[in-house]
Order: sequence, then structure tokens, then C-alpha cells
Amino acid sequence: MSDHDVAVVGVGQSEFGALEGQRVTEFGGRAVREALLASNVDNDGIEEAYIGNVASAAQDQTGVVGQAVLREVGVTGIPITRVENACASSTCAFREAYRTVRSGECDVVLALGVEKMTGVPTDVALKDMSGASDAEVEGPMGMTFMGVYGMRANAYMDRFGDVREELADIAVKNHSNGLANPYAHLHLDVGREDVLDSRMVADPIRLLDACPMSDGAAAAVLARGEVAEKLTDEPVYVDAVEASSGDYLDSDLEYWREELDERVSERAYREAGIGPDDLDVVEVHDAATIGELMHYEGLGLASHGEGASLVRNGDVLLDGRIPVNPSGGLKSRGHPVGATGIAQVCELVWQLRGEAGDRQVNDPTIGLAQNSGGALVGEGGVSTVTILSTR
Amino acid sequence: MSDHDVAVVGVGQSEFGALEGQRVTEFGGRAVREALLASNVDNDGIEEAYIGNVASAAQDQTGVVGQAVLREVGVTGIPITRVENACASSTCAFREAYRTVRSGECDVVLALGVEKMTGVPTDVALKDMSGASDAEVEGPMGMTFMGVYGMRANAYMDRFGDVREELADIAVKNHSNGLANPYAHLHLDVGREDVLDSRMVADPIRLLDACPMSDGAAAAVLARGEVAEKLTDEPVYVDAVEASSGDYLDSDLEYWREELDERVSERAYREAGIGPDDLDVVEVHDAATIGELMHYEGLGLASHGEGASLVRNGDVLLDGRIPVNPSGGLKSRGHPVGATGIAQVCELVWQLRGEAGDRQVNDPTIGLAQNSGGALVGEGGVSTVTILSTR
Repeated sequence: MSDHDVAVVGVGQSEFGALEGQRVTEFGGRAVREALLASNVDNDGIEEAYIGNVASAAQDQTGVVGQAVLREVGVTGIPITRVENACASSTCAFREAYRTVRSGECDVVLALGVEKMTGVPTDVALKDMSGASDAEVEGPMGMTFMGVYGMRANAYMDRFGDVREELADIAVKNHSNGLANPYAHLHLDVGREDVLDSRMVADPIRLLDACPMSDGAAAAVLARGEVAEKLTDEPVYVDAVEASSGDYLDSDLEYWREELDERVSERAYREAGIGPDDLDVVEVHDAATIGELMHYEGLGLASHGEGASLVRNGDVLLDGRIPVNPSGGLKSRGHPVGATGIAQVCELVWQLRGEAGDRQVNDPTIGLAQNSGGALVGEGGVSTVTILSTR
Repeated sequence: MSDHDVAVVGVGQSEFGALEGQRVTEFGGRAVREALLASNVDNDGIEEAYIGNVASAAQDQTGVVGQAVLREVGVTGIPITRVENACASSTCAFREAYRTVRSGECDVVLALGVEKMTGVPTDVALKDMSGASDAEVEGPMGMTFMGVYGMRANAYMDRFGDVREELADIAVKNHSNGLANPYAHLHLDVGREDVLDSRMVADPIRLLDACPMSDGAAAAVLARGEVAEKLTDEPVYVDAVEASSGDYLDSDLEYWREELDERVSERAYREAGIGPDDLDVVEVHDAATIGELMHYEGLGLASHGEGASLVRNGDVLLDGRIPVNPSGGLKSRGHPVGATGIAQVCELVWQLRGEAGDRQVNDPTIGLAQNSGGALVGEGGVSTVTILSTR
């Protein structure tokens, strides 16, 4: 293989939240401008762009949203491709950008995630989200994403015992981290009792166990190693971006287990030449608190049934052994679905560069992001694992 | 560069049309099964898949449509990524598949296009399609895609004179070709007067100048050269897949000219080491007859203003000097937007292998497909050019 080294040279993000009256081109453009500035790359330096977006009916644009955002910024006349994989759309866009640089096809490629989810009636937003699951099987059964998380939480607790309080503590941790993230959607000071007393959504998932629906954008500029080293003193190398969809045909699916994570992370660790013990900082897909707990185990941070111990021991806190979701995660930073994956990359880059301000973890050199998308009969539509390092 | 040769080893297509009562998984699955059979590849042989789809509200699936179709066929547990670029979605999916094999990332990759457009109210379908243009600028002006084609036709005729009869003859040719295509949506025997007498849609575009909205799916299996040669005696090599979006910022856009085609085809010709005179068979994006005419010029088959002469001379007929749209094109084969690009690839593969039956052109060895997607203020959202050959 003559693969090239690939590094992220700069990232940018819009604020996440209910960006009332703001068009995707507006906040998407801000994320791109910030990433270009941080990268020391001019508009003309971008050779190709990939955009993660889920085309919610809330948006003004569907098919050409990437072109519309980049026209706003002045990046035109290049190949612009939209990639969609439900809530993992922008990680999948990042993955195509990574491969395009790694193969030598291009030197500098932009990866962007952008989503407008607020400002439409709830039934429209719910219909958008239902498209990320099997609308033939799950829709008629009344299944929702929080319904799936509820089932998984029950299957988990049936096998390993009650973790209700630890789930609440995950929400507490992520909201605490989010208070220090200026881009976060929810700046809430939340305690364990607040979570346990919040409205039931899909037993045992309560309102404060679930992430919000958000608007927002995140962008990253990727460059071939040699080029990256000219652009910045602090390239953050991409050591792996792996993805897989589910097996689906296996009727023995174990709902308490993140098999898809296990399979994808094993490949990513092998590609990066590391193991879970080497990680210094992690971002996972905590659309619901039980998701974060199960990802601990899926990624090998804890063995089966032992995820809650990471919470009890404080391991996953900002100053813990392996901080998880220092950004606040989906729970607090927010979840503009098509932007979430690259927002995780932004956080890892800031953390690895020591630029994360009051939520900075202690001197990290290797970070991992896990991003999930969609579901078919309860099994993941896609799971992705990205590993970044300062080398 | 240590790029690998890439070949299409087999293709498959569902029938195109108003597939009443059929789900995307059903006709999508048929296209995939046909492609796998034609390729001598088992389900387990597919390492990765890219899916072109525009997520029309008419569909049961959006985010995970690729996973749903492939689960139906039994291709699971691999990375599955949806790519969207309006009417060029599946060419862009094919392009990612091509790059994945070319870089050595995978040996065998599936590219699929699938779309369900019928069976919903007209206003829903129109809203879906409007997402492929700039809904902020063009929507409020009452612009539609056929409106854009009408403006371009007027700009063209203002500059080069009347081509109304030649446009009609393009429709006649494509419908005649489509009569020999068992997969085609419209099997109509159409004469010049039928076109000229048909209902006006957007002056000078008449009903029989415009393509239908269709359901359908098309699939192609791509393999690394050495692998392809073991799978088939008739590999069809992929010599180039180029794409670009528009410049947008140039206020001097010439509506009579396909500048985007010119830029993209120039790169594709260079990559393939050929010129337009070397082509034996061509498929172009004739969503409207004026589109086909302008693509002749954009691709360099004729100089500016000379496209109509190809029609007058019979050059673009099945037995002409450079047959265009032997499949019947979008005009007759139909236009299930997310499936159109790979349907073009299917046709070229059948033509290059001499398997095109009554629409077979004379002994071709090099073919080209041009596929357009979306628009921003009248300039193309994306144009793609694919070159295939038997070498």
C-alpha cells in the first residue's frame, strides 16, 4: 500500500441549538469559514467536499445543500457530494474525505456536517427521524428511537441488574461538561434527582436521559500529511475511520450488547495499531444515556456488564482515567443529526491540541469518536469509529 | 500512483416505470440480484456498498434505504453508505465505489441506485424535486426544472436559431430506441408531429420533450482488475469518473452553453487518454430534449451551435456515427432520479458487451455517460462524466 498520511489541519463549528430564523447556508457557512481560517487554507485550496446531511423536511435545501452552503462561502467549481447515513451522516462524509486524501486523489478536502431540525411542527420532525429506521416494520409497531433505547436499556438491566442511577449520572456528567462548551445547545446545571424525576419518555428512558433535536454545523479540513505539516504546527492525524452496517439476518441479536461497535472498533484499533487502553479521550453517541453506557462496552473500555463501574469510579469524568464526552456529548452539546459526527471530530481536535478551555482533559495524545446512525429492527443502521492522534 | 485498474463485472436493473404497489426493497433487490448473478459474485463477495437515492417523500425509507434493500437480498455486515446529488446521485455513488476499488481499499464493491417517485400526490413529488434546486431563490420565483430547461432552450435558440424540429426528432429517436429496451418506462411510438402537437409545459418545452417521473433501480458490481479477470471473460473497464459542481459566483453564466459539461468532460477525456472522436456510444442526461442537444456540445461531440446538425445528419441514431441514448434515455427509459446514473452504466456495459439486443450499436469499444444533478440559479448542481471501455 502506498497510502498517504492524512491529518486534520483545522476545524470549525457553528453554535448548536434552536437557531431560530437562521438558514442552513448561514450557520453552515460559519462552520466552514471557521474551519478554513483555522486551517490556513483559502477557498481555492479546497479540492473537493463531502457533506453529511439528513435532508429533514425542516430544511430549505435537500439535494444540493452542500453546493448552497459552499456557494455562500465562495468554495465553488469543485466536486461536492452529499453523504447520508442517518445520525452518522457526517462521519460517513468525513470517511469519504479521509479516503480521498489517503489514496492520493486530492491533497486538501473539506468535510462538513449541517442540519436544520427545529422550526417545523413536531410531526414533521418525527417523520424525518422515522426515515432513519425501518418504516415498514418498526413504524407500524409504534417504535421510536427512544423506544428502541428503552428496550435496550431493559434488556441490559434484565441481564446485568439495575443501572438507573448510573444512567442519571451520565446525564449529570455530560450536562456538566456542556456547561464549559460555548457551542453546546443545552447549558443546564443538572443533578441526579433532576434526571430521575424528569418525565418518562420510554421506560426507563426519561426526558433528561435523551438528547435534544438541534440545528448546527461542523466542518473539518483534511490534508495529506506533507501538506498538513506545511499548513500547521499541530496536525492531528487520522489513524482510522471504520464503519459497518448490521448483520440483520441474525435472529439472535442480543439487545444488551453493542455487537456492531465491537466489530467496527476492533478493525479501527487494528488499523491504528492501538487498543482501548491507549485512549486518552473519547466521544460517543449518547443519543440516550443507555447508549453511552453500552458504547463503553462496545468499544472495549469496560467488559460486558461492567460499563456502569466506569461511572461509579469516576473514570469517565473530565479528570478521570478515560474521559468520555468532554464536549457534553449529544446530551448537552446537542444532536443536529447530520452534523454530530464532525462535531465529535472538532472536539477531539481541540482536545488533542489543548484548546478545549475549561473542559480540557489532561494532555491527551490519542482520541476516539464513535457515531451511530439509524436502525433496522433494533440493530444499528451503521456504527462508525474514528481514531485521531497527535503521533 | 499505484492506482488499480477497475472494471464493472456485472450489472442489473429492475424494470423502470410506475411500479405500483412495489416497495423499494422489492425492485431494488431485483436489480442487485441480477447484478450479482451477472457478476458471478456471491453475497459474501461484496465488501462495501454505495447507494444513490434522493429520499423522496414517496419512499418508505430514507436514511437507511441501502441497508433495507441489501438486507432483502442478504448482503449485510458491510459498510453501506448513501450518496445523494439530486439526479446524479447514483453516478456519485458509482464514483465512490470506483475510488474505493481504485485505491486498493476493497476488491469488490457494489454500486446501487434506487428510487420510488410514483404513488404520491403530485404536490409531494414536486416538493421532492424542488429540493434539488435553490429553494430560496428559485422556488419563490415559481421556477421548476422544466422552467429552467425552457429558459435554456430560449437562450440557445436566441443565439443559434430555431432548433424546435430537431428537439422533436431527439424525442422521436429516444422513444424509438426505448421500444427495444425491455426495462424502459415508456414504450411509445412517437412521431415528430406528436411532439410538436403535445401540450406546452414551459415554452418551448412540450410534454413529449420531457422525461417521465419513474420508479426503478440499477446496480453494478465493480472489481479490481485482476479480480475482475477471474470473474468474467468480459470485464468492462472504468477509465474515468469525473464530477464537478458549478462556479455559481460567475454572474456571466451563459445559459446556452453547458460549461460544467465542458470542464468535467475535458478532465475525463484526459484521464481516459481519449477524445470525443474516440467514442462509440454515449448516454446523456436528456431530462428534456434541449438537455440532450446541449450535452452534445458540452461533451465536444459538436461545436457550439452545431448540436442540431448531429440530429439532422442522423449521426446520433442507433446506426449513426455516434449513437446517443440507445437505451431510450431519460425520455423513454424513464428517470427514477437516484437510479438514472447507474442505469446509464448498465446500458453502456450491455452495449460494450454486445448484449443490447435490438438496440445494439455497431461493435462499440468505448462508451461515455453524462449525468446531471440539481441546479442553483440555473447552473448545474453537479455534472458527471463516466468513460467505460473494453480496452
